[in-house]
Amino acid sequence: MSNIRLTISYDGSRYYGFQRQTGKPTVQQKLEDALTDIIGSPIQITASGRTDAGVHAMAQTVNFHTDTSLSPDEIFRLLNNKLPSDIAVREAKYASERFHSRYNVLKKVYTYRINTSGFSNVFEKKYVFDFFESLDINKMREASELLMGTHDFIGFSSVKKTKKSTVRKIFDIVFTEKSGELDITYTASGYLHNMVRIITGTLIEIGAGYKEISVINEVFETGDRSTAGFTAPAKGLIMEYAVY
Amino acid sequence: MSNIRLTISYDGSRYYGFQRQTGKPTVQQKLEDALTDIIGSPIQITASGRTDAGVHAMAQTVNFHTDTSLSPDEIFRLLNNKLPSDIAVREAKYASERFHSRYNVLKKVYTYRINTSGFSNVFEKKYVFDFFESLDINKMREASELLMGTHDFIGFSSVKKTKKSTVRKIFDIVFTEKSGELDITYTASGYLHNMVRIITGTLIEIGAGYKEISVINEVFETGDRSTAGFTAPAKGLIMEYAVY
Repeated sequence: MSNIRLTISYDGSRYYGFQRQTGKPTVQQKLEDALTDIIGSPIQITASGRTDAGVHAMAQTVNFHTDTSLSPDEIFRLLNNKLPSDIAVREAKYASERFHSRYNVLKKVYTYRINTSGFSNVFEKKYVFDFFESLDINKMREASELLMGTHDFIGFSSVKKTKKSTVRKIFDIVFTEKSGELDITYTASGYLHNMVRIITGTLIEIGAGYKEISVINEVFETGDRSTAGFTAPAKGLIMEYAVY
Repeated sequence: MSNIRLTISYDGSRYYGFQRQTGKPTVQQKLEDALTDIIGSPIQITASGRTDAGVHAMAQTVNFHTDTSLSPDEIFRLLNNKLPSDIAVREAKYASERFHSRYNVLKKVYTYRINTSGFSNVFEKKYVFDFFESLDINKMREASELLMGTHDFIGFSSVKKTKKSTVRKIFDIVFTEKSGELDITYTASGYLHNMVRIITGTLIEIGAGYKEISVINEVFETGDRSTAGFTAPAKGLIMEYAVY
């Protein structure tokens, strides 16, 4: 058996997320169906993590085990020929036998893109969230300092009470101001469901003056989702890459 | 009367080009209809030049005369609210009375984007042409040297015999290699119909080894369209900006 590792990009706009769901198009389904077809026996893939409906990926990592005689280069070519044009394989290679794309992740990097220009980004409108009120980025940065480190992020997630740990570590939050755009890039050990989008919504509300910076610690203290900001739309979120 | 100058972006994918055509969606029609609606009297706009069906623009210049009391800032906001999300106004300002967006152009800059990565550019697939055979960029650069300067470009156009001059001057052709992409940026005094796309098709055929560099001078000597390369698809072409 070989363990094949793929790096993939996808435009999540028309998918019901990464994970397979009966009767709905998902990225996992498109990949598994294409691989099964090419290799001639059922293939099951694992990813570094799920992405939600409408969320995109620049360099998602997936892996699968197979006894195919096809080389990674052959899989790369055949798969790119077969996949719809909103999913692409950037790289295919052999991984060590024990490599697991989910269990072995050290960090995952996500970026949230906010169009602040005051007009539509006509070329990338599917990948940015339009927010045209003025944002105090210094306040957002200050709030982001409070978010970094190890915390119980349950109040910044759509997770209901659970026995599983809701503690995660955010290593870094970086703000990049481009012409007419503000990008927020998160690096963390992992993310709870909707965590990046709720943190982003909270930072936007702080930047726009609807919430105070102190709301961050309030959410940590109470664990109360309703104290945090809105869930920023899926289309502005892109999974950048996973670090192993 | 004021003369208002707009800088606009558009994704040309769903339009039958810039210029108004009865019964078909065009960029000019969308702009004029929205302006006429906002200002309350019929508005006719002029652009730095037409773009063909499916061609995009980053910073096209247009202008129009009006006796509206609305300020450019008000026009900017109202127009962006009214336009479809694949057309945006980047800037609106007063121009001098005699400014004419077509007659006053000194140079126009176009970029042709070629996806060379071997896989779909999932996020920008509507704006790049996929060409996955290997390209000898040195040969393409060498051929581009022959194209620069003042020439009769009729053989590199879809223009039939005409009394109008088919002489144009190309000031510069710049090749930019990015990760998995080759961009060719043209700066010229003006362009004949399909000129950028036919020159690009010819350069691609030279780079891929289907044509010799000497074909450039042959096309200049004979003026024969069929000697030049294929017409590269519209979707890879973007009008960058006009210089006044």
